[in-house]
Amino acid sequence: MYRTIEWLDEKNQVRLVDQTKLPLTKAFIVTGSHERIAESIKVMEIRGAPAIGAAAAMGMALAALESNAETKKQLISDLEAAAETLNTRPTAVNLTWATNRILQVANATEGDVESIIDRLIEEAKEVAEEDVRMCRAIGENALPFIESGATIQTICNAGSLATVHLGTVGAVVRVAHEEHAGNISVFAAETRPRQQGARLTVYEFMEDDIDTTLITDGMIGTVFKQGMVDCCVVGSDRVLGTGHVTNKIGTYTMAITAKHHDIPFYVVAPTSTVDIDNGPESVEIEERDPDEIRIINGEYVTRPDAKVYNPAFDITPPELITAIITEKGVVENPTRAKMREMYEK
Amino acid sequence: MYRTIEWLDEKNQVRLVDQTKLPLTKAFIVTGSHERIAESIKVMEIRGAPAIGAAAAMGMALAALESNAETKKQLISDLEAAAETLNTRPTAVNLTWATNRILQVANATEGDVESIIDRLIEEAKEVAEEDVRMCRAIGENALPFIESGATIQTICNAGSLATVHLGTVGAVVRVAHEEHAGNISVFAAETRPRQQGARLTVYEFMEDDIDTTLITDGMIGTVFKQGMVDCCVVGSDRVLGTGHVTNKIGTYTMAITAKHHDIPFYVVAPTSTVDIDNGPESVEIEERDPDEIRIINGEYVTRPDAKVYNPAFDITPPELITAIITEKGVVENPTRAKMREMYEK
Repeated sequence: MYRTIEWLDEKNQVRLVDQTKLPLTKAFIVTGSHERIAESIKVMEIRGAPAIGAAAAMGMALAALESNAETKKQLISDLEAAAETLNTRPTAVNLTWATNRILQVANATEGDVESIIDRLIEEAKEVAEEDVRMCRAIGENALPFIESGATIQTICNAGSLATVHLGTVGAVVRVAHEEHAGNISVFAAETRPRQQGARLTVYEFMEDDIDTTLITDGMIGTVFKQGMVDCCVVGSDRVLGTGHVTNKIGTYTMAITAKHHDIPFYVVAPTSTVDIDNGPESVEIEERDPDEIRIINGEYVTRPDAKVYNPAFDITPPELITAIITEKGVVENPTRAKMREMYEK
Repeated sequence: MYRTIEWLDEKNQVRLVDQTKLPLTKAFIVTGSHERIAESIKVMEIRGAPAIGAAAAMGMALAALESNAETKKQLISDLEAAAETLNTRPTAVNLTWATNRILQVANATEGDVESIIDRLIEEAKEVAEEDVRMCRAIGENALPFIESGATIQTICNAGSLATVHLGTVGAVVRVAHEEHAGNISVFAAETRPRQQGARLTVYEFMEDDIDTTLITDGMIGTVFKQGMVDCCVVGSDRVLGTGHVTNKIGTYTMAITAKHHDIPFYVVAPTSTVDIDNGPESVEIEERDPDEIRIINGEYVTRPDAKVYNPAFDITPPELITAIITEKGVVENPTRAKMREMYEK
């Protein structure tokens, strides 16, 4: 799999894949303009917290290259304007985090404008590299649980496309695939209503020639019963200090069904998603637009006035989870104490 | 809910709803032509074993009215031709069963052509009435399990539209709704890949002003956990003598999830679907076209070359089933012996 976003050294430009065209068309955007990066973030040509963090950092580096500043002060003024331009999605904390990080480095760096710019490019690339290393560490921590020949059940997309490279669940699959000489397969649940499993997960594993089979969400029982799957590996939007896991709707049903068949259920996530002080009572589940369920590909699949319940996430309790795996380590049979021990490492 | 198919006495014509236009448009076909009925069966304007049985019987009665026969022999010759015309779907045993039944009555009836025709119309109407009575008996047998205020979880469509009226799961909901003064609600799982839950179940319960909420298949765990549902009621394509139940893919996952939350799981079906001498090893699960999953409303939702597993049905074992309910009675905690006792009543 190519990187979702990448700095091209030879041109000092940024290349990113246009996710709005996937999975049917693979088109890259190559740009030297921080305004074009801002646009990509806004229209979700690039999405996923780690990926847009890297995009914002690289956007800042492009802004530095675009600047006509002759003094550090002028440069910082241009960078502050660029940071505003790049913060196109108000709730995306990674955007602010990344633009602030580049601004701090600019402020802290001594020397002429040119050397400051070089330093900012290095820092933007480092933001991306940190994400790649974090993903790889998750994949390596999970490796002892994934035997050669294993088939891994996934839900939604926690793959490369949400990160700079590898992904979280994607890293588990890819590191095991490397280690076991390609002897790893995937079953991807399509993940209604938005079908990130069908649209993204299938696409990105096929790009890497990883044997991947698409199923509907209701088929998991049959697939588990027939012994077609060896373990489940899912991501998380928020891991709680109690060992409860918030993830895409459907995850909890999958965990119950896995438990019924004695199939191990692994959750992988960076520690940045761990909310160590809180439990499930702190989570408010977002209810989304009913039309996400009523309409597919522009046409109604039910009555337009059908009543709909559309929670975006569910919560899986620790008793259904075999292990929670982060870049810092593995928590088997998660408890509050074990979670804190891993977290504070 | 109107009847799926109905004999109009005043005109001696047949009225049926065009299911290919549902749920967005409610259009009826009214015809005095048995060839038009044959066409409706062929293009699936009418579908479901009981409904097409009634359609074929009524088609035979129309053919009798259309006939210019002056003798019983001529009439029977015309009816034999009509039976061939009406048998448009080779694997639908109900078609042959219904046309044979009308032919046998024609052969057995004495008197002039006009009185034979009157008798055939009565017989065709009786085929439909038997189905209505069978559905109602299922609904009445289930009633002790459905309390006032209950919310019932369904999957797929086992409602009116597959039968002449009421349906099987539909009868359970409707008879309880009548009995409990409208104090019954439904959660309908959309049922990927073909979405009969979204397209048909939501539609037909809304027609009867029954409070119905549509969810995706992966949401059942959350709905059960939150106490939004009191029991599951599902249909069956084939109930086995061992108490195993073959039904739409997703049923088994739902049964596991219901068991995990101690939610009763009821299966309703006419005894005509009971295969009393066989167990699950006799069932071969049909695998359907991968494009049912890859394409929705004419557009791909994944890569066109994605590998897909698309089993049409699954098998739920008796230990997950609270009771199997037929028109003949109720089998709680089904075993082979109890199934046979109910069956041979």
